[in-house]
Amino acid sequence: MNEIDPWASSSVEDYEKLMRDFGIQPMGDYQGRYSDLRYIRRGIIFGQRDLGRIDEAVQKKKRFALMTGLMPSGKFHFGHKMVADEIIWFQQKGADIFSCSADIESYVVRGISFEDARKTAIEEYLANYIALGLDPERLSFWFQSDYRTEYYRLRDMLSKKVTFNELKAIYGDDLTTGKIISALTQAADILHPQLAEFGGPRPLVVPVGADQDPHIRLTRDLAQRFSEEFKFIPPSATYHKFMSGLQGGKMSSSNPQSYIALTDEPKDAGRKIMRAKTGGRATVEEQKKLGGIPEQCMIYELYLYHLVDDDRELKEIYGKCKAGTLLCGEDKKHCAQLMEKFLSEHQKKRDSALKDARRIAERKR
Amino acid sequence: MNEIDPWASSSVEDYEKLMRDFGIQPMGDYQGRYSDLRYIRRGIIFGQRDLGRIDEAVQKKKRFALMTGLMPSGKFHFGHKMVADEIIWFQQKGADIFSCSADIESYVVRGISFEDARKTAIEEYLANYIALGLDPERLSFWFQSDYRTEYYRLRDMLSKKVTFNELKAIYGDDLTTGKIISALTQAADILHPQLAEFGGPRPLVVPVGADQDPHIRLTRDLAQRFSEEFKFIPPSATYHKFMSGLQGGKMSSSNPQSYIALTDEPKDAGRKIMRAKTGGRATVEEQKKLGGIPEQCMIYELYLYHLVDDDRELKEIYGKCKAGTLLCGEDKKHCAQLMEKFLSEHQKKRDSALKDARRIAERKR
Repeated sequence: MNEIDPWASSSVEDYEKLMRDFGIQPMGDYQGRYSDLRYIRRGIIFGQRDLGRIDEAVQKKKRFALMTGLMPSGKFHFGHKMVADEIIWFQQKGADIFSCSADIESYVVRGISFEDARKTAIEEYLANYIALGLDPERLSFWFQSDYRTEYYRLRDMLSKKVTFNELKAIYGDDLTTGKIISALTQAADILHPQLAEFGGPRPLVVPVGADQDPHIRLTRDLAQRFSEEFKFIPPSATYHKFMSGLQGGKMSSSNPQSYIALTDEPKDAGRKIMRAKTGGRATVEEQKKLGGIPEQCMIYELYLYHLVDDDRELKEIYGKCKAGTLLCGEDKKHCAQLMEKFLSEHQKKRDSALKDARRIAERKR
Repeated sequence: MNEIDPWASSSVEDYEKLMRDFGIQPMGDYQGRYSDLRYIRRGIIFGQRDLGRIDEAVQKKKRFALMTGLMPSGKFHFGHKMVADEIIWFQQKGADIFSCSADIESYVVRGISFEDARKTAIEEYLANYIALGLDPERLSFWFQSDYRTEYYRLRDMLSKKVTFNELKAIYGDDLTTGKIISALTQAADILHPQLAEFGGPRPLVVPVGADQDPHIRLTRDLAQRFSEEFKFIPPSATYHKFMSGLQGGKMSSSNPQSYIALTDEPKDAGRKIMRAKTGGRATVEEQKKLGGIPEQCMIYELYLYHLVDDDRELKEIYGKCKAGTLLCGEDKKHCAQLMEKFLSEHQKKRDSALKDARRIAERKR
């Protein structure tokens, strides 16, 4: 499916450089074997480390885990949905899901109160996870600020074998005490499911964006440095690309016009789509003559990531756009319809998921 | 009693410089008011910060607390006994005692396992505390590695407002991730008794050696930086001098000849005393003529700190030594007898205190 990769030019080179420089592996055979996940099939999840361990566990029906953290600030949007879909898919493949609210990080780095963070984690993240299909009964959820003593003890032990230079590789020279706490906490988030008290050593995968790789590398190193004490298996990772903002550029939690939240009013979401950047030409005439550029179109990106799961249907849209027979106005309306339908159905599920979300958050860990 | 201060020359200047440079206050009136504690009466506890708050609580029978940490390595010796005596004295004055085993620090900085640290904390420290008179029923004891979530949360919150320069003031430029964890943990050790879950804001005193003052200063600053969130009252502190090693120089846990442990066989302790450095002269004749130098005598120091509580008796020894009528051999024998008697009686109490010590360590916190 590489021909419909929307990052055909510079950005792919960026990802390829990243893979070359830091040793992230391509998906290779896994792209075909796990083509049932749209993001893998379409190359949006473009790289991995040690996914072989997870593959083996899936094939042999052995125990494995997935760890994911959420930043409890802002709205749950379609960038987050991509990760949620991957988590749910891994759960259906048999993973024990460990999910945490990174409320220590949001407090020390962003100044968000624990109370606000709790509300966001439950109402935005957990409720949407469950509405999207996560089985809450097979989920270990915790707040970084309110967890078991073994977790904090592990984090403190890790501090013994982390150097400043390693932390600077993550945060740059602008290191602070709070960032050090955040980095250690993230490493403990990823490693603690392998402690005896949490199920013991087993393969574990972390779905991340490429920007999170320094954390993965540090944590993999720490797993080896503490292999004697804990028999940790270095965590595996998958790497995904990022959705663009609706106006092009970055999707940003601080700019609601750049994303569609899963709690946006369907009509409002439709309006955002009607205002989105497309790959259209300056005039209708030009577009009919030259065709559109789906690789630069935010509407097309929404189809690719979320709204059109059928590859044949997606290819058809792609072809019509390139041929200049599908124009942006019509296409936006189509996209808005799909979006409004999705949101209406999703939001009903979310309403009934809220109770489960609250219960999970209060559950004794 | 300043005339019998054994640190008459250079070291007092050091302490005075310390007080001048960092604003530690002299004991002033408290030396007389609290002369029932030998260490205060004799100027061994030489300085304080905000002791007025504690004084007021004692006088008005209001609630106050004391926090003390123990480093769970090596033997419990007479340097530790001095602090234990002060803790017990404050407990008798009404303090809620918070005592922790600094097993995170001993792990990350010294590589001591949590298991070994637990054994040392119980068998050396707790058992000796209780045998010396600490009431275990009025003691909150915890391990840094195994405590309540509110404590870890506080520590993480503190990380938001601690700068690298402040930490370098404590540890020098040779800062490590583990030392940062230790410093934050110490600050949480001192501040958490004022959290609502642990009794709420109230005056709290920390007995320390002068070398620990950077920790006290940092913690007092943090108390103010978090006064809005927690209404912390900046902790008070007392500052004590250090006992010398039996051979002169520093008392060191890594050199058993430099100290007497409270679990030493009484006869072995007696032998250590017979080998100790004294303030004697080169020959008996010279000593009879010039007199001894009690200010440089480790035997005299044992009397001053521990073995001779009666000031008149101490003065008499001092006078005889100076006059050359008490010679070192005789004096050592006397000291060894006092020591052997003390240890025999103490060790019986310690044996029966062990059960309480183990119970306290396992108690749900």
